[in-house]
Amino acid sequence: MKSEAVWHSSISAVAANEIRVRGYRIDELMGETSFVSAIYLVLMGELPDREESRLLEAMLISSIDHGAVTPSTLAARTAASTGAPLNAALAAGVLSINRFHGGAIEDCMHVLKEGLQRAAERNIELEKAALELVHEFRHEKRRIAGLGHRLHDDDPRTRKLFSLASELGLADGGVAMMLALEGAFREIGKSLPINVDGALAALLLDLKVPVELANAFFIMARLPGLAAHIREEQTRQRPMRSIHPDALSYDGPEPRSL
Amino acid sequence: MKSEAVWHSSISAVAANEIRVRGYRIDELMGETSFVSAIYLVLMGELPDREESRLLEAMLISSIDHGAVTPSTLAARTAASTGAPLNAALAAGVLSINRFHGGAIEDCMHVLKEGLQRAAERNIELEKAALELVHEFRHEKRRIAGLGHRLHDDDPRTRKLFSLASELGLADGGVAMMLALEGAFREIGKSLPINVDGALAALLLDLKVPVELANAFFIMARLPGLAAHIREEQTRQRPMRSIHPDALSYDGPEPRSL
Amino acid sequence: MKSEAVWHSSISAVAANEIRVRGYRIDELMGETSFVSAIYLVLMGELPDREESRLLEAMLISSIDHGAVTPSTLAARTAASTGAPLNAALAAGVLSINRFHGGAIEDCMHVLKEGLQRAAERNIELEKAALELVHEFRHEKRRIAGLGHRLHDDDPRTRKLFSLASELGLADGGVAMMLALEGAFREIGKSLPINVDGALAALLLDLKVPVELANAFFIMARLPGLAAHIREEQTRQRPMRSIHPDALSYDGPEPRSL
Amino acid sequence: MKSEAVWHSSISAVAANEIRVRGYRIDELMGETSFVSAIYLVLMGELPDREESRLLEAMLISSIDHGAVTPSTLAARTAASTGAPLNAALAAGVLSINRFHGGAIEDCMHVLKEGLQRAAERNIELEKAALELVHEFRHEKRRIAGLGHRLHDDDPRTRKLFSLASELGLADGGVAMMLALEGAFREIGKSLPINVDGALAALLLDLKVPVELANAFFIMARLPGLAAHIREEQTRQRPMRSIHPDALSYDGPEPRSL
Repeated sequence: MKSEAVWHSSISAVAANEIRVRGYRIDELMGETSFVSAIYLVLMGELPDREESRLLEAMLISSIDHGAVTPSTLAARTAASTGAPLNAALAAGVLSINRFHGGAIEDCMHVLKEGLQRAAERNIELEKAALELVHEFRHEKRRIAGLGHRLHDDDPRTRKLFSLASELGLADGGVAMMLALEGAFREIGKSLPINVDGALAALLLDLKVPVELANAFFIMARLPGLAAHIREEQTRQRPMRSIHPDALSYDGPEPRSL
Repeated sequence: MKSEAVWHSSISAVAANEIRVRGYRIDELMGETSFVSAIYLVLMGELPDREESRLLEAMLISSIDHGAVTPSTLAARTAASTGAPLNAALAAGVLSINRFHGGAIEDCMHVLKEGLQRAAERNIELEKAALELVHEFRHEKRRIAGLGHRLHDDDPRTRKLFSLASELGLADGGVAMMLALEGAFREIGKSLPINVDGALAALLLDLKVPVELANAFFIMARLPGLAAHIREEQTRQRPMRSIHPDALSYDGPEPRSL
Repeated sequence: MKSEAVWHSSISAVAANEIRVRGYRIDELMGETSFVSAIYLVLMGELPDREESRLLEAMLISSIDHGAVTPSTLAARTAASTGAPLNAALAAGVLSINRFHGGAIEDCMHVLKEGLQRAAERNIELEKAALELVHEFRHEKRRIAGLGHRLHDDDPRTRKLFSLASELGLADGGVAMMLALEGAFREIGKSLPINVDGALAALLLDLKVPVELANAFFIMARLPGLAAHIREEQTRQRPMRSIHPDALSYDGPEPRSL
Repeated sequence: MKSEAVWHSSISAVAANEIRVRGYRIDELMGETSFVSAIYLVLMGELPDREESRLLEAMLISSIDHGAVTPSTLAARTAASTGAPLNAALAAGVLSINRFHGGAIEDCMHVLKEGLQRAAERNIELEKAALELVHEFRHEKRRIAGLGHRLHDDDPRTRKLFSLASELGLADGGVAMMLALEGAFREIGKSLPINVDGALAALLLDLKVPVELANAFFIMARLPGLAAHIREEQTRQRPMRSIHPDALSYDGPEPRSL
């Protein structure tokens, strides 16, 4: 083997009876910290503090499922319906998380960064930067990701995420810029409430998560939901059925409280 | 639409500004419970209790990563190296979690169930059932999944998982049967320590998780590791490189403690 | 590198300015033979003769497309609808070709082999072996793959494939056994005409293609159809639409002849 | 179902016992035309003429395989090595065909179109347009896809494709522009021979295939090779092996001629 083929990784070190993730013994992490903290550690290199960890728990829950007929769930159910094993059906679902479904988080983070940069560079208010962006996007006939939803006009996930971030002292420029964009639309007479993608974009930015990892967070969050739907498809439906998105009826537990 | 096309799902109910998972408002779950508890809820239909939740945290951490050259990581890195977007590289990794990598958990659960059933039906000791199984598998020249590891002969993850399960009062028949199998091999002169797949199989059984969901747990656990390796490949390596599994060198943080 | 890591492949040899597939220079194959012959070569190790090649052309065409709402096409369109790149949408389609969709070819080949083996071993007529199999499957309440179709009761693809195979002198035991199975059902009063999967199973058997490659033939055949649907989804539909399988209307070219 | 949900497809019309692709009865296409012509039909809407069809055969053969250690093959073999079914291993391979592997065809087509457009708009020689492009790319430190290869400096596939296109009267602006780019590099003292991606890009352009379908052609061409490698991995190698790209040794048929 030629010496130039040596390559490096800084994520895990595996030796006989000793596995370390980012320097920590995995068996020390187990029992002492949460899965969500370990997710942050493996992706970001350091453990989150207590507040960041609490916020991440809520962020990941917020996208765990959104019903049986979102595109990624339909793709996963369709694959399962043909007899695909669980991992293949999950892969079909993951392959359906893109720009127009889940990917809005990444797009929105770019807009928020652009807005914050403008405000900083030209020393202007966030509100002014937001209004400029809104006008520019409208002029180019482009939508700003993270605002508006076909179903929710007061998304309970957004409200909860922002109140929690505020309470934990973690709401920063991302949240402020996101609210400024919502306000800018209101100012020009458009009601475009912040959706869960927008809320997650703002918080990921304030948690210093790189834009390139935004989709990873959404995919990790949604995977359990996809798995549940695949299992339900396998156990409750006959194979090779034609799936009608409008013909879905919920028959799970009645509304209940913790 | 014909009426027979109506189909049911019991997982989530989505209405304007109200999203419920298994009956609970998602915004109530956020902040009040952990992501791991929500994973269990969406897959199993009910929230875990405090002890189950703690054990699940450790179980999911135990498989979060195992270095840069496991097959699923190599597949994900190879895809990333060609320019695949994050979700496609993750899918390539997930498609490489099968019978011989990750899938051992499912196979091992079947063996454990078989052993427990024999012991119950014929009212014999677990040790006796285990010895029978070991002899039968050896006679058919088949391996029992969950025992032995090419690298670890005293897997720190197994030890931690079993001590934690014991401390939390959750070690039950699955753990006992797993230990009986290890003992049966010892009795015939074979040292085949319980690996992490075997430990997870035992605990998933004791947590009443259906065998068909075992792979889902491994995939959810490993996804953050895959994402970290994909991101590292994208940022530290040149595209289209030839990846030599033996030429890997770790250059991450020094060993450290919590 | 340890010497035991050396591994072998007998498919292609690639050297500077010389690429050989199964021994033949690729640039000699180009121009002299057909893509279908090269497919057979790369998979089977030898070039097909003229008759086999003609039959393979027809076999691959027979499964090139079957409309916009088969499960693999729906999965591919769903992924494309979320913004997936072409290869990811193709992968989602390929992952939806399994036991209940496309995979029937493989299942049917197993039944045909079983029937032929029984007839040979016990020196009985194919008709008798077929009747036995039909009775056994019915007793076990199992379907025999390759017979019956929800839409076609006289599948034009089956008729064409069998007449072509006959004309080319390639119809052998596989075709005979398939017809015997259809006859056995007729004898017990069931009209279950041979579908395209059954016809392909019979012909792949008569072409000595291993059962394990049956799915590869179907996937290669269907890939162009999947690509066409993905492209159509990307160019004619808005993103993130809800795809209703019953609401499809054909607006392509009028019926025409060659 | 709401009426706005009606959607259209112009690819296939499927009715009882009648399947039409782009207007032609599929059973009429079978036997009368080639698989490659049907591929072109389903993707492009019309049958190719005799010359186009012959060229397409050679183009698809040119990319059918390139040895056992290209990234898509390694990803497919890695998945197969873990026990993945054939379609899942194929999907892992397809997901590894991207910008840096296979995707060069698409990138190169964009450059060729840009060059041809410049030459047409400003009424300049192709050579002049090519030299401008080469200078611009070098100034921006970007590579032009389709030129240069780490192994082949006189790619036999390129030579064969161009001579065949010329003989069939199908070499047009795409080929001319491609040659002009190679000449422009030569003029500035760089020997960057046209690779197979560049040759395919030129010919797809001259066949009026849309840029967005370029990857589909490469994926269709490579799928048989991927399937052959997956099958070889399943039958010749032990599961979960560590695949060393440098340790490959060819042991197939000796060099032979048609």
